[in-house]
Amino acid sequence: MTYMRDVKPICDSPNEECGVFGIYSENVRDVASTVYYGLYALQHRGQEACGIAVNGNAKINYYKNMGLVPEAFDDTKLSELGEGDIAIGHVRYSTTGENKIINCQPLVFNGKCGKFAIAHNGNITNAKVIRDELMRNNILFQTEIDTEVIGTLFNKFSDSGVEEGILKSCAQLEGSFAFVLMTTDKLIAVRDHYGIRPLVLGKLGLDEYVVASETAGLDAVGAVFIRDIDAGEVLIIDNSGLKTLKLESKPKKTCIFEYVYFARPDSIIDGVSVYQARKQSGRLLAQFYPVNADIVAGVPDSAVVSARGYSETSGIPYVEALAKNRYVGRTFIQPEQGMRESAVKVKLNALKYNVQGKRIVLLDDSIVRGTTSKKIVQMLRDAGAKEVHLRISSPIVKHPCYLGIDTQSYSQLIGANRSKEEIMNYIGADSLEFLTVEQLIEGVSCGNSGCGFCVGCFSGEYPMPLDKKDVKKLILE
Amino acid sequence: MTYMRDVKPICDSPNEECGVFGIYSENVRDVASTVYYGLYALQHRGQEACGIAVNGNAKINYYKNMGLVPEAFDDTKLSELGEGDIAIGHVRYSTTGENKIINCQPLVFNGKCGKFAIAHNGNITNAKVIRDELMRNNILFQTEIDTEVIGTLFNKFSDSGVEEGILKSCAQLEGSFAFVLMTTDKLIAVRDHYGIRPLVLGKLGLDEYVVASETAGLDAVGAVFIRDIDAGEVLIIDNSGLKTLKLESKPKKTCIFEYVYFARPDSIIDGVSVYQARKQSGRLLAQFYPVNADIVAGVPDSAVVSARGYSETSGIPYVEALAKNRYVGRTFIQPEQGMRESAVKVKLNALKYNVQGKRIVLLDDSIVRGTTSKKIVQMLRDAGAKEVHLRISSPIVKHPCYLGIDTQSYSQLIGANRSKEEIMNYIGADSLEFLTVEQLIEGVSCGNSGCGFCVGCFSGEYPMPLDKKDVKKLILE
Amino acid sequence: MTYMRDVKPICDSPNEECGVFGIYSENVRDVASTVYYGLYALQHRGQEACGIAVNGNAKINYYKNMGLVPEAFDDTKLSELGEGDIAIGHVRYSTTGENKIINCQPLVFNGKCGKFAIAHNGNITNAKVIRDELMRNNILFQTEIDTEVIGTLFNKFSDSGVEEGILKSCAQLEGSFAFVLMTTDKLIAVRDHYGIRPLVLGKLGLDEYVVASETAGLDAVGAVFIRDIDAGEVLIIDNSGLKTLKLESKPKKTCIFEYVYFARPDSIIDGVSVYQARKQSGRLLAQFYPVNADIVAGVPDSAVVSARGYSETSGIPYVEALAKNRYVGRTFIQPEQGMRESAVKVKLNALKYNVQGKRIVLLDDSIVRGTTSKKIVQMLRDAGAKEVHLRISSPIVKHPCYLGIDTQSYSQLIGANRSKEEIMNYIGADSLEFLTVEQLIEGVSCGNSGCGFCVGCFSGEYPMPLDKKDVKKLILE
Amino acid sequence: MTYMRDVKPICDSPNEECGVFGIYSENVRDVASTVYYGLYALQHRGQEACGIAVNGNAKINYYKNMGLVPEAFDDTKLSELGEGDIAIGHVRYSTTGENKIINCQPLVFNGKCGKFAIAHNGNITNAKVIRDELMRNNILFQTEIDTEVIGTLFNKFSDSGVEEGILKSCAQLEGSFAFVLMTTDKLIAVRDHYGIRPLVLGKLGLDEYVVASETAGLDAVGAVFIRDIDAGEVLIIDNSGLKTLKLESKPKKTCIFEYVYFARPDSIIDGVSVYQARKQSGRLLAQFYPVNADIVAGVPDSAVVSARGYSETSGIPYVEALAKNRYVGRTFIQPEQGMRESAVKVKLNALKYNVQGKRIVLLDDSIVRGTTSKKIVQMLRDAGAKEVHLRISSPIVKHPCYLGIDTQSYSQLIGANRSKEEIMNYIGADSLEFLTVEQLIEGVSCGNSGCGFCVGCFSGEYPMPLDKKDVKKLILE
Repeated sequence: MTYMRDVKPICDSPNEECGVFGIYSENVRDVASTVYYGLYALQHRGQEACGIAVNGNAKINYYKNMGLVPEAFDDTKLSELGEGDIAIGHVRYSTTGENKIINCQPLVFNGKCGKFAIAHNGNITNAKVIRDELMRNNILFQTEIDTEVIGTLFNKFSDSGVEEGILKSCAQLEGSFAFVLMTTDKLIAVRDHYGIRPLVLGKLGLDEYVVASETAGLDAVGAVFIRDIDAGEVLIIDNSGLKTLKLESKPKKTCIFEYVYFARPDSIIDGVSVYQARKQSGRLLAQFYPVNADIVAGVPDSAVVSARGYSETSGIPYVEALAKNRYVGRTFIQPEQGMRESAVKVKLNALKYNVQGKRIVLLDDSIVRGTTSKKIVQMLRDAGAKEVHLRISSPIVKHPCYLGIDTQSYSQLIGANRSKEEIMNYIGADSLEFLTVEQLIEGVSCGNSGCGFCVGCFSGEYPMPLDKKDVKKLILE
Repeated sequence: MTYMRDVKPICDSPNEECGVFGIYSENVRDVASTVYYGLYALQHRGQEACGIAVNGNAKINYYKNMGLVPEAFDDTKLSELGEGDIAIGHVRYSTTGENKIINCQPLVFNGKCGKFAIAHNGNITNAKVIRDELMRNNILFQTEIDTEVIGTLFNKFSDSGVEEGILKSCAQLEGSFAFVLMTTDKLIAVRDHYGIRPLVLGKLGLDEYVVASETAGLDAVGAVFIRDIDAGEVLIIDNSGLKTLKLESKPKKTCIFEYVYFARPDSIIDGVSVYQARKQSGRLLAQFYPVNADIVAGVPDSAVVSARGYSETSGIPYVEALAKNRYVGRTFIQPEQGMRESAVKVKLNALKYNVQGKRIVLLDDSIVRGTTSKKIVQMLRDAGAKEVHLRISSPIVKHPCYLGIDTQSYSQLIGANRSKEEIMNYIGADSLEFLTVEQLIEGVSCGNSGCGFCVGCFSGEYPMPLDKKDVKKLILE
Repeated sequence: MTYMRDVKPICDSPNEECGVFGIYSENVRDVASTVYYGLYALQHRGQEACGIAVNGNAKINYYKNMGLVPEAFDDTKLSELGEGDIAIGHVRYSTTGENKIINCQPLVFNGKCGKFAIAHNGNITNAKVIRDELMRNNILFQTEIDTEVIGTLFNKFSDSGVEEGILKSCAQLEGSFAFVLMTTDKLIAVRDHYGIRPLVLGKLGLDEYVVASETAGLDAVGAVFIRDIDAGEVLIIDNSGLKTLKLESKPKKTCIFEYVYFARPDSIIDGVSVYQARKQSGRLLAQFYPVNADIVAGVPDSAVVSARGYSETSGIPYVEALAKNRYVGRTFIQPEQGMRESAVKVKLNALKYNVQGKRIVLLDDSIVRGTTSKKIVQMLRDAGAKEVHLRISSPIVKHPCYLGIDTQSYSQLIGANRSKEEIMNYIGADSLEFLTVEQLIEGVSCGNSGCGFCVGCFSGEYPMPLDKKDVKKLILE
Repeated sequence: MTYMRDVKPICDSPNEECGVFGIYSENVRDVASTVYYGLYALQHRGQEACGIAVNGNAKINYYKNMGLVPEAFDDTKLSELGEGDIAIGHVRYSTTGENKIINCQPLVFNGKCGKFAIAHNGNITNAKVIRDELMRNNILFQTEIDTEVIGTLFNKFSDSGVEEGILKSCAQLEGSFAFVLMTTDKLIAVRDHYGIRPLVLGKLGLDEYVVASETAGLDAVGAVFIRDIDAGEVLIIDNSGLKTLKLESKPKKTCIFEYVYFARPDSIIDGVSVYQARKQSGRLLAQFYPVNADIVAGVPDSAVVSARGYSETSGIPYVEALAKNRYVGRTFIQPEQGMRESAVKVKLNALKYNVQGKRIVLLDDSIVRGTTSKKIVQMLRDAGAKEVHLRISSPIVKHPCYLGIDTQSYSQLIGANRSKEEIMNYIGADSLEFLTVEQLIEGVSCGNSGCGFCVGCFSGEYPMPLDKKDVKKLILE
């Protein structure tokens, strides 16, 4: 799958979900800056909007805006947030809710338990059910996002304190969630029962803790990785230290797509290096789906590593086939019909010298709609490639994700209704192979047998029962 | 009082409150445009932010932003709001709540009574009390403004329908309020028991009703004035026509400051022309506080009309003494210490030929902090004026307003702690006179004896009992 | 004529020309701030773009942008200009040249006489002729404005120094010009042979001189008026003091439209107060064109003063008939056909109580296209006026201006081809009268008989011979 | 060398120069769009400003602005440029001249030869000498860039037509230049005598020619590569077809840094694939500077290919050691002192799993200041690397470039005054090796022996004699 995620009209990839970041410091300082750099490192998880909330003077100050982190925040905005000792932040890709500032996070609330803010990554599959119930009790909603449901439950159950509040609300939540919640004196990090979305804990200097969606967020601020937040863990950080509470125990089911596509290669999720997982997947592709070819190449950026794995195992030399324009951005003007062809070329360009007369094994991480793959294969043929054999380092995406990833609806998934051969013909590849679910799991496990994965988008089997009609395209209105 | 309202750092005037506008049409069309022009005409009531909400496809679409109406909205934003048959809008000057987008109006809610939106002008003096009570029932708040309290109450009481909902909530509200509330099929206009803030009804063409804070808003969209919304009236407009409900009956107490300063001279409030009220106040000043002088002048723009009244009654010729820069705007860079003098001059300039060697009667509408008056008197003396006699077409502002006007706190009100002589000496005028409360009421009544006024900022007596400690500087956090 | 100058599509007034400002200080300081406030006060002379240039470190730093002065400049931009002891500035309304940044002023040049900058108000009628000649000598042009021609001539003739350079170039220039030119150590102010456009000299503190298009610019920065720059004067200010050179002597011909409409009422041009000139014009209208009426009113803002003069002479009371929205700005969205009527109402609104049943004498300063006058008359009738008698405090505009004012082309001038009666019928007034040229001159002279005026737009007779085909709509491309 | 080119304060790389693009069509159409996509593909050559000029209605319309191509241009701006059959464009990195709009390109002129526009890449080393001479002939200059000198010369010499104009001006120009010049009916492409900066010709469809700095620009718009513009070639395209003129013959000296760092890997310059040149350089490094190590890695993005070459030749496996944040942009807020460390980490992050306990050969393309290399080495050690051996795929940069690349001044070049050992110690690497000039030439030649290169920044020997005092940091003021 190509990495052209920012250009919506010809987008052909699952959209990222969201990224969260939190910090607890023993000193009042410019904690918002740390969140800024942390979000910067998590930018790949959401490019549409972002926000930061900071405690200070018994209030929670915040600022949210559309756009990339460095677009939304400048020096002035950051310093207006003031100093504090707790802060959380969010980068958003709209999985639910329209793309308005009201739906940006963190959401900041004023309730009977005082002021608090939440930044959430995931998808609460029973949000509508809970919300309808809350509405019957005179509760109003002002946004379209499930985070507001989390906040309302938390407030409702917090009569006997924050701990009870968070445990009781999480007991009601179904689906995936990994969120940070701050009160004026606590930072709380929660990962759902199955640990579907990732969340890690790190230490910064001697007296600061940080929580981030990925370890890359810790690295960016100079924090040391301590451990993953556990599936079903509620971690509370305040001036008495760290305290862990536990939700009802469930088998761990990390979203396998995080390894396939979403997460940064330098992140380590639940003990597995994303880089290693990708490389291993490439190796397995070579082992199970060999092909006579002259060169191996990967669609940049996400499939470059698995292509390297394929090359190592197959012995076919790795050679770049495609160069990517590093400046492709959000505001790209879409070409008129006549130049539609060039749209992909502006972003990806074939390396003619490398592909001319060559039989190519082209690695990609996944196929969602298939339209970009089709264009890339054509581009390589135009550049002189003799054969293009497509190898996908994941199974066919046959089912929508209900747990935090905005894959297209059924009808847009090329794999939902077509056989491998039909897909191959549509794309125009000389051959096409996918990893099986088992192979992917083997690749991602990298030998760590203990870990379970959510593979719902490939198998249709999700960690929990889902009323799919309610959940699909859940927009809380 | 000078009209330099947009320039905050040297602001010396009561800040405006807010303006509201609503439309109900029998046809689906671009009703947002009508609201746009209506808000444009009400811009003087709030320059910090604005917003418009429109029903459409069983949803309520809205857009809010900081800035003047023509800055916040362009063609694209307006057309993105889509078509509808009901819309409301708001211009805001922050009387409560920080100046953030979250505090902009209309507020849009999703509750058990469906989706609805509110745009409110006024100040609910028991908002904190109500909110604390609601919080105890698990209700969360996301903004700092009392409009959210109105919405939450309305939702709570609307089990048996909108009518009961609005009546029961208004029964709990104390203070001043004039708001428009839209559901997906009704436009509701409400004016508080005392009618403190103005609200009028007009008809546009054959099948559209509009509601606005002032008649100038009706005129701007070509609507015909029908009548003032009555004190304590709840007017419901839907496809069965107009229906009036009544809140508990109270004596009418229109805010007299609307006539003195806030409202546009071309508006007519509760049967009294603002222009006439100002002119009559000037006449009374001439009658009760005559002075030997060569010319009469008014501080532009608001005191020009009363100066004309003074001139007519006294027989002293009206001559402009001050010219105003028509381009003074919000982003004006404040001068360094050395040029501080010039700051007023950039906005107001003495007409030397007119004032040289002259004894001037200078009319202003009110004195709040006194600092600008001092500078103006000095500017006229520098331009050669022999004497400057200040005549104020309202009494001394001795008390804060709790009912929707952001006068300064007690300590900043020059009239709170100083005698007329002390004020005169501070300002440097040769004489200084104010209307008494009775004289102002006489002036504003223009013969319509039946009408009562809220004169709390002058007399300290407000229409309703107030727990001032709670109310003063009410910011809901 | 209404003052709705900022709203282009329904604009019905001559467009302003430009305003210039310059400062020479004996000390290096933030002279750009002084220019900023000076330009602010001259904003009415041009709202499309502005710029400031400052000497510093033997360079000339500058910044230009589209928009009003406070929009184009903020604290950062001003401080980036750095300190200096000489600065000039410009506000622009595009009389020639497209509305691009390249055409904004000051223009800054690097020539054999070193670095210099020019800010110019006026219209060089032989610019194209000169430019073509210069082009034949290998000179290139990068803008579309005549200021570049002035700069090129100055550079060409400055071999023997700045004085010779300026005298020789001005000797070649025809048309109107009032400009400030700065080198890195001199400030030069030049007014054309006839003094068509205004320019004044003031002193700020003990050791600074300022030059401005109008005295209102001096007042705004706290400078004391010294004198008008004389027609045909070249004033050179440097560290040896002030020095005056003289161009060939011509009779003074100040543009009379400056008094009628352009200049601020608080400015004094060539010894005549603009305010007094307008008032006197109103008196003469009353004397020569009396009418039986109940009230006198003026179209705000420019005709208010002449209406007062009419009232005083006629004895008919002055009463406002129209209220103006103070927030009308540049980005106003134009209404669709159906609401076109309201467009004028958004900006001007009839004061119903004042005009109902009244016979009105309505003063306006001029009629260019007549369309707005037509709408205003209709608006007053809709508000209940019984009669509307229009009195214009200037003659019929029958001819284009070639000397710095962007009146419409011949075909758009309602007065070019129609009689007074035809105009009256088009506008729908009950009667219509204009001052004659002689009467206007008498009014503006205010007793100062010595002064001559350019009245070309009324009489077709311009101070100098003009090849009108070349000059009309001169755009240097 | 790291690729963090956009973040100025910690920039440690030669800045790119500029990119140019031109199109000649036989049909009037939206040629500006084609230039837009072409510039998009050349964005890596200049990110500070860009501009496009189009002929139309016998004029040349243009728009220039600061920022990236998709930031500076939107649909509206593009369509306002109108249709035409000739257009040129420019992306700029300020090698000379301050970063103001006035210095953006294309420059558009109006001269005796009519209207024309120029977009230039390179550095005219005798620009100041020529300009001073032109100034003596009354020519004025308004920008600080050498492109204005080219335009002025062209105009001066074009009495007998465009061909003579371009030949005579180029005969006077020294230094490097590759520019496109458009008149209203011709597109002209010129490459300097030595061919220092690249320029290529392509064909788009049947009846359009395009010229671009790199072949990647041709690919992006779907054009077919025809050939490189030759060193010393003047190519004129008009309605009579293509015509080549020749400047005085000189040996070809393509800037070798284009291959090392500037150009896109998918571009082919003077017959050599940039990708192949980089890979071959890596191979030679492995051959001449072997080291015992566990993995080979490259600093992304530019050194990844040479690292692959090193891996292939050495047999040491290629493994990524560093991950790059794809969202690093221009407006990045610089961290305070305490977080300065993290600044590099926000952009580059070590892949711990890959480097832990490993002896790494790290490839980079060049070392300019050495500060970033130092941080990267430290980052790898912090991540657990046992040894870091740095291999640079170019020689030590010992001399400034006077021919279009903004390397730092002498004092900032770590290689100007220090030995290899001193550099190694400063950076903290376990070993450090550079290619020699001869080895680099061998690597880049890829067997094509005929091609000469400019290697001035390594050897101090430039293709032409230079008066370095005049040329260094040439800013035309």
